[in-house]
Amino acid sequence: MIIILKEGATKEQIVNVEKRLIQLGFTTHPIYGEVKTVIGAIGDKRDVNRNAIMLMEGVEEIVPIMLPYKLAGKELYKEPTIIKIAQDIEIGGPKLIIMAGPCAIEGETEFIEIAKKVKQGGAHILRGGAYKPRSSPYSFQGLEIEGLKILERARCETGLLIVTEVVDTRDVETIDRYVDIIQIGARNMQNFRLLKEVGNSNKPVLLKRGLASTITEWLMAAEYIMSEGNENVILCERGIRTYEPSTRNTMDISAIPVVKELSHLPIIADPSHATGHAKYVPALAKAAVAAGADGLILEVHQDPPNAMSDGEQSIRPDRFIDLLFEISKIAQAVGRSL
Amino acid sequence: MIIILKEGATKEQIVNVEKRLIQLGFTTHPIYGEVKTVIGAIGDKRDVNRNAIMLMEGVEEIVPIMLPYKLAGKELYKEPTIIKIAQDIEIGGPKLIIMAGPCAIEGETEFIEIAKKVKQGGAHILRGGAYKPRSSPYSFQGLEIEGLKILERARCETGLLIVTEVVDTRDVETIDRYVDIIQIGARNMQNFRLLKEVGNSNKPVLLKRGLASTITEWLMAAEYIMSEGNENVILCERGIRTYEPSTRNTMDISAIPVVKELSHLPIIADPSHATGHAKYVPALAKAAVAAGADGLILEVHQDPPNAMSDGEQSIRPDRFIDLLFEISKIAQAVGRSL
Amino acid sequence: MIIILKEGATKEQIVNVEKRLIQLGFTTHPIYGEVKTVIGAIGDKRDVNRNAIMLMEGVEEIVPIMLPYKLAGKELYKEPTIIKIAQDIEIGGPKLIIMAGPCAIEGETEFIEIAKKVKQGGAHILRGGAYKPRSSPYSFQGLEIEGLKILERARCETGLLIVTEVVDTRDVETIDRYVDIIQIGARNMQNFRLLKEVGNSNKPVLLKRGLASTITEWLMAAEYIMSEGNENVILCERGIRTYEPSTRNTMDISAIPVVKELSHLPIIADPSHATGHAKYVPALAKAAVAAGADGLILEVHQDPPNAMSDGEQSIRPDRFIDLLFEISKIAQAVGRSL
Amino acid sequence: MIIILKEGATKEQIVNVEKRLIQLGFTTHPIYGEVKTVIGAIGDKRDVNRNAIMLMEGVEEIVPIMLPYKLAGKELYKEPTIIKIAQDIEIGGPKLIIMAGPCAIEGETEFIEIAKKVKQGGAHILRGGAYKPRSSPYSFQGLEIEGLKILERARCETGLLIVTEVVDTRDVETIDRYVDIIQIGARNMQNFRLLKEVGNSNKPVLLKRGLASTITEWLMAAEYIMSEGNENVILCERGIRTYEPSTRNTMDISAIPVVKELSHLPIIADPSHATGHAKYVPALAKAAVAAGADGLILEVHQDPPNAMSDGEQSIRPDRFIDLLFEISKIAQAVGRSL
Repeated sequence: MIIILKEGATKEQIVNVEKRLIQLGFTTHPIYGEVKTVIGAIGDKRDVNRNAIMLMEGVEEIVPIMLPYKLAGKELYKEPTIIKIAQDIEIGGPKLIIMAGPCAIEGETEFIEIAKKVKQGGAHILRGGAYKPRSSPYSFQGLEIEGLKILERARCETGLLIVTEVVDTRDVETIDRYVDIIQIGARNMQNFRLLKEVGNSNKPVLLKRGLASTITEWLMAAEYIMSEGNENVILCERGIRTYEPSTRNTMDISAIPVVKELSHLPIIADPSHATGHAKYVPALAKAAVAAGADGLILEVHQDPPNAMSDGEQSIRPDRFIDLLFEISKIAQAVGRSL
Repeated sequence: MIIILKEGATKEQIVNVEKRLIQLGFTTHPIYGEVKTVIGAIGDKRDVNRNAIMLMEGVEEIVPIMLPYKLAGKELYKEPTIIKIAQDIEIGGPKLIIMAGPCAIEGETEFIEIAKKVKQGGAHILRGGAYKPRSSPYSFQGLEIEGLKILERARCETGLLIVTEVVDTRDVETIDRYVDIIQIGARNMQNFRLLKEVGNSNKPVLLKRGLASTITEWLMAAEYIMSEGNENVILCERGIRTYEPSTRNTMDISAIPVVKELSHLPIIADPSHATGHAKYVPALAKAAVAAGADGLILEVHQDPPNAMSDGEQSIRPDRFIDLLFEISKIAQAVGRSL
Repeated sequence: MIIILKEGATKEQIVNVEKRLIQLGFTTHPIYGEVKTVIGAIGDKRDVNRNAIMLMEGVEEIVPIMLPYKLAGKELYKEPTIIKIAQDIEIGGPKLIIMAGPCAIEGETEFIEIAKKVKQGGAHILRGGAYKPRSSPYSFQGLEIEGLKILERARCETGLLIVTEVVDTRDVETIDRYVDIIQIGARNMQNFRLLKEVGNSNKPVLLKRGLASTITEWLMAAEYIMSEGNENVILCERGIRTYEPSTRNTMDISAIPVVKELSHLPIIADPSHATGHAKYVPALAKAAVAAGADGLILEVHQDPPNAMSDGEQSIRPDRFIDLLFEISKIAQAVGRSL
Repeated sequence: MIIILKEGATKEQIVNVEKRLIQLGFTTHPIYGEVKTVIGAIGDKRDVNRNAIMLMEGVEEIVPIMLPYKLAGKELYKEPTIIKIAQDIEIGGPKLIIMAGPCAIEGETEFIEIAKKVKQGGAHILRGGAYKPRSSPYSFQGLEIEGLKILERARCETGLLIVTEVVDTRDVETIDRYVDIIQIGARNMQNFRLLKEVGNSNKPVLLKRGLASTITEWLMAAEYIMSEGNENVILCERGIRTYEPSTRNTMDISAIPVVKELSHLPIIADPSHATGHAKYVPALAKAAVAAGADGLILEVHQDPPNAMSDGEQSIRPDRFIDLLFEISKIAQAVGRSL
C-alpha cells in the first residue's frame, strides 16, 4: 500500500510511520516530494488494520494497491468459472441460462402451470419464492416449507432445476435439501452470517447485488461465501437505488462488463426487479445479453393482476416465449446461444 | 386510494376498475376530467395488492392516501413515545441520552477502562459490539458470547446500561439475556426475520436506518418489530449512501425533523458512522442535537490507531468529555438538557 | 389534480380549499373518506402555482394528474418524431445514426484524419468540441472559433455532417452558422437561457441528460427548446451520477424504453461518457442498441494517450470499425439497420 | 502522483512509463512490490493530462497526491478568508451573516414590505430573484431589469445589502452594477463561462453547490472564479440530490466541516432549498449553525400560498423573527453571535 503524508509532516512523524510499517511486516520505500512525502509499503497484508497507520500523526491518506478480495478476483483464477448445475446446464459458458417463474409460490396448481409454460418457452431453471422478504409485515410472507414441497413437485413434473431464496440462517439446511441453487436476495447481500451459512452448502449460490452496494462490496460478499469453501457463486445484477423515480431501481448495465473485468464468476441479470414494470423488461433483458450477461432471471406469472407479490413486473407466459425468441437473436449477435 | 386512468381509457375499462374496487371492499367515486378519469376508492385496505388494480387495462397510476405503517405513525399514537430504559433513563423526553463506547469489544481490561471513561464523561448507555458485521471475511468478527460477558461485567462495574448489536436470528435469545437495548444494524434493517425475532423480545430495540433506505422503509422496519408486540423502538440516523466521497456516508440531518413529523418514536443520531472521520464527529453531533435528536450514539476508543474496528471514526475519551460539554450548551439552546 | 387533505381537516378548511380551486378555474369533486378527504380538481391548468393550494390549511399533498410537459410528451404527438438532418440522414427512423469523433478538436490535421477514419468506419455525423466545458480552469478549453473552422473543413473533406457543443448564449449565433446539429451538454441541461437561445435556432438540438437529472426534468428541458419553436430535439442518455465508483457515471439503460414510453422524441446513447473507460464502451454501445436507442455518439481518437480531453474513454479508429460491425448485428437482431 | 502498474506488467512497460514521466518533467521513484510495481512521480504538474500516463500499456491506476485546486484550498491561504461586504458586514468572521427575502421579486410594494420585515428581524442582506431559473418554461421567469431596480429601491429604503442570481453571461455586467453580492445558482455551478464572467467582477460571489456536485467539483468551481482574479467567493450548501423523497434535496450537513477542513473560504447554508418545506427549515437552520456555518440564506415571504416561486419552502416574517432568536442561542453555544 501507499501512505501519503500530510504537507508539513515532520521528519519524526515520517520515521514513526516507517517504524510502524516495519513492525507490521512491511518493507518501506519513502519518496520525498517537493510538498509531500509518500511511503510505499511492500507486503501482502490484506488483513492489516487500516487505521493502525491512518491515525498516526502526519498521515493524510492510505492507498491500497491490492484488491480486498482474493477468491472472487482474478489473481488466483485467471479463467472464467463455469458452474455446472446439471448434466447439460452450465452457467458461464457459451449458452445463456434462463431462470423464470413467479415472484412467490402461491399454490401448487398455479405454480405447476407456470412451470410448464416457462419450460415450454425454453427456461432452464424455475424460480419461485417460498420465503419472501416483504417490506410490509402485512404482506404475504410466503408458503415456507409448503412452498419448498411445491417446488419439488414442479421439478418432478417439468424436469426444470429450481432456485429459491433463503432469508434466515435457520432455514439454510432445509432449503438446501430441496433446491438446486440457493438464492441470497438483495436485502441480505450483507447478512454475513447467512453468507457464511450458504458458504457451507455444496449447492451453487445466486448472489443478488445489494440495493445500494458497490461492485467491490458485492465481490466481498461473494468472498464471504467462497472463503467458507463454496466457490460456486453466480452474481446477479438487479438494479441499484438512484434518485430516478420512473423505474423501481436503475439497472447498472455497466456492472456486467465491470464484473467480467474484475472477477472470474458468472453474472446474470434480473430485469424484472431492475425496472419494476413489465413493459420495460424486454428492452432491459435484451440489453443485458448484449452487454455480456451469462443469463437472465425473469418473473413470469399467468395472471399478474392477481399475483400476490410483484405482479407489476411480471410478464405473461406468452410474452415470455416471444421474448426468449428475441433474446436468442441478440445472443447470436454476440456469439452465444440460448 | 386514488386510481388515475390513462388518457383514452374506455368506458368499459373504467367500469371494470370500479367493479374490481367494489369487489375488494371499496366504495368508489369516479371523477371525469377533460382528459383523464380518476376514481377515488374509499376504505382502509392497506393490505390490498396494489397490482390487483394497477395492472387492469386503462389504469395509469395508483396514489395511496393512507400511509403504509400504522403503529410507527401518528394515527394511533398522537403523543411522542418516551421509552423508559431504567429508573432514571428515558429516551424521547427532555433529557438527551448519550450512548458511547468502542465499535467492538476487544478485551475485558480495555473495555472496562473505556466504560469508566465514558461514564465519567456523562454517557448513560455503553455500546460495544460482540457480534460484528464486517464487510471482509478476513476482518475481526467479534468476541461473541465472551463479548457479552464482558459487557455484563462492564455494567456491573460502572452502572451503565448496555446496548449491543444482533446479527443472526439464532443469537437473539442469548443477547436478550445480557443487554438492556438490542441493536439492529444498518445492514440488517430489512432482515425481516431478525426484525420479527426482536419484536418478540421485551427489550427496547435500537433500529439503525439502512444504508440506502428511505424514511418510509425505515418506519416500515419499525412496524415489523412493533407488529410483533415490541413497541419500544428507538430510531437511529447513521448516514445514507450518496455520491459524495469525502465522508463515509452522508448524514441525512433532515431525517430528524421528518421523523418527528411522521412518527411518535424517538430518534437519535450516530455521527461516527455518518462521517467515518473522528474530526467531523463533533460538528455533526452538535448539528443533530440542534436539529432535535433525542440523543447520540458515539464511538469512543482510548487508542484509535489500535482499534480492531472503525478506529478512524472513534474519538478519544478526553475529546468525548469536551464534546459532551459542548453538546450540553446546544441542548440548552434548544430547550433540552444532558 | 387531486388534493389530499390532512386527517382531521375541518369542514371549513375543506370548503376554503374548494373555493380557492374554483377561483383558479377548476371544477371540484370532493370525496369524503373514512379518515381523509380528497378533492378532485378538473381543469388543465399546468401553470397554476402548486403552493397556492399546497399551503392552505388542512392540505396534506397535491397529486398532479397531467404531465408537466406538453410538446415533449405524447399528448399532442402520438407518433415518433423522425428528424431529418440531411437528404438521407434521419434520426428516429429504422436506421441507426452514428455520431463519432474526438472529444475536443485539437488541430486540423489530426481532426481531419480522425474524420476520415470514422467516415470509413460508417459514421454519419462527426463530433468534436470547439468550446469545452472542463471541470478545471487549468485544462484545455477548446480552440473556439478556430475549432468551428476546422469542423467546417472536415465536413467539406468527408461529407460528414457535424455536431458540436455550445456553452454560452453569446456563441449560439456563431455556432449555428457552422454546424448541422447543436449540442447542449449535460452540465448545461438546466441552463435555461441557453435552451431558449437554441430554441430559436432552426438547427436540430442534441440534448444530453443532466448529470443527475430525472427523466421528467430532461423532458422539461426539451420542452424549453420546443416551446421557443424548435421541435427538433434529439435526447442523449450519457450516464447519471450514482454512488458506484467503478465507472465515471452509471448508464441508465432503462431511460431508453422509458423515454420511448413518455415521449415522441428520438433518443441516442453516449457510452463513452457513461462509462469513462474505453474498455467498457463496446458492451454499453451494444446494450443501448439492444434496448432500442436510435443511435450512438462515440468518442474516437487515433492516439488516446495524447488526447487533450477524455482520452481514457476514447476508442481507437480500428476498434470503432469493428464495433460498428458488431453493432450492425445487434441492430439487425432488433429489426433495425446501420 | 503515484502510478500503479498492473500485475504482470513487463519490465519494458515499466521502463516506458518512467521514460514518459521523465519527458513530462517528473522525477521517478519505482517501488517493486511482490505482485505489483508502483512508481512515485515527483513534480507539481497539476495540468498534466492524466491519460498521457493512464493509457500506457501496463498502467492500472493513477493516484494524484496534490489536490486539483490551488486558490480554493489551504496550500496558499492557511487562514480563513473573511469577506468584507460593507463597513460592518463581514462573512467568515465571528458574527453570522443572515441573508433573507423571497425567492422571486414579484412587485415593488410587496418586496419592500418583506425587506422591511427581514431587516427588523435582524437580516443583514436581502435576497430576491430578478432572473429565475425555473424548471418549466411556463413558470414565472422573473422581472429581470425591473426586478433589479426594485432591489435597488429596497436597499435605499432599508439599508440592507442585496444579493441576486445571475443566469446568463450577457447579464453579468448589468447585475454587477446593482447588487452587492452576485449569486451563482446550483444549476449553473458548472456553467464555466458564467463562472469566468463573475470572476472578472469585483463583487463577492455566492456560489451554490451544484445539485449533485462533489465538494471537490464545488471547490473547482470556486477555483474558476478565483483564477480570473475574484477571490471573494462565499460557498453555499443547499442540499444534494439523493434517493430520499421526503425532502426536496438532502442537506449535506457534513459539507460544512469538510469545507472548513479543505478550504479557507466561508460557507453558509440554505435550509430552504435543502428541504423544500417551510416546516423543516428551522431545524436545519439551527443544525447548520451548530455545525459551523458562517451564515444562512433563508426564504421569507409574507404570503407563501401566493408566492410566485417556491412558496412551500418560504417561512413567514414572524416565524423568521422567532427563528433568528433561536439561532442566536445556537450561535452563542458555538462561540459565535448574530
